[in-house]
Amino acid sequence: MSPFASTPAAPYYAVIFSSLRTPGDAGYGEMAERMAELAAGQPGYLGVESCRGADGFGITVSYWRSLDDIAAWKAHAEHLEAQRLGHQQWYSGFELRIARVEQARSKPAR
Amino acid sequence: MSPFASTPAAPYYAVIFSSLRTPGDAGYGEMAERMAELAAGQPGYLGVESCRGADGFGITVSYWRSLDDIAAWKAHAEHLEAQRLGHQQWYSGFELRIARVEQARSKPAR
Repeated sequence: MSPFASTPAAPYYAVIFSSLRTPGDAGYGEMAERMAELAAGQPGYLGVESCRGADGFGITVSYWRSLDDIAAWKAHAEHLEAQRLGHQQWYSGFELRIARVEQARSKPAR
Repeated sequence: MSPFASTPAAPYYAVIFSSLRTPGDAGYGEMAERMAELAAGQPGYLGVESCRGADGFGITVSYWRSLDDIAAWKAHAEHLEAQRLGHQQWYSGFELRIARVEQARSKPAR
């Protein structure tokens, strides 16, 4: 499966979530998988790209049709619980930025 | 050093560069270091966040004051050469998205 998100022509929205994991799993892997699956089923979801380095620092960018779709996903009950645990246990720090994608280009052969 | 970028209040711009590396180094590590150093000295540069997983997929998000600053960095002679080599040798695929950051929040204790 390609790690790239196949997004439509701009404009659309990106949620840039950068985070530093605390040591150990503590249920994180299972929850991350569940959230990826759940997000993919939400209205306006366009795709996701994600990586984490050996130092525990990771970036996940999810793409959405509109700010309203992002707000609805943020308020989803299961996602709220994941956010709470993330804040309490899984992340020693994070930054979340919401941005409007205005231009895009790619190297298509991959 | 913190892996997080200390960005100002929104709005500002993000260049989201996701890429899949070809196997082997072939001068990539040295060039990546040089480009990070060079970018940091450009007008309007606000910071960068970057990670790459063991599968070779990585995301680098650089933050800028304006679209003009991004365009100037894209056209920088040394950076043009790096872009050429990236396209030819280092990346089997990439996506580059330019986005206007409109909202941000963080977990400050880190």
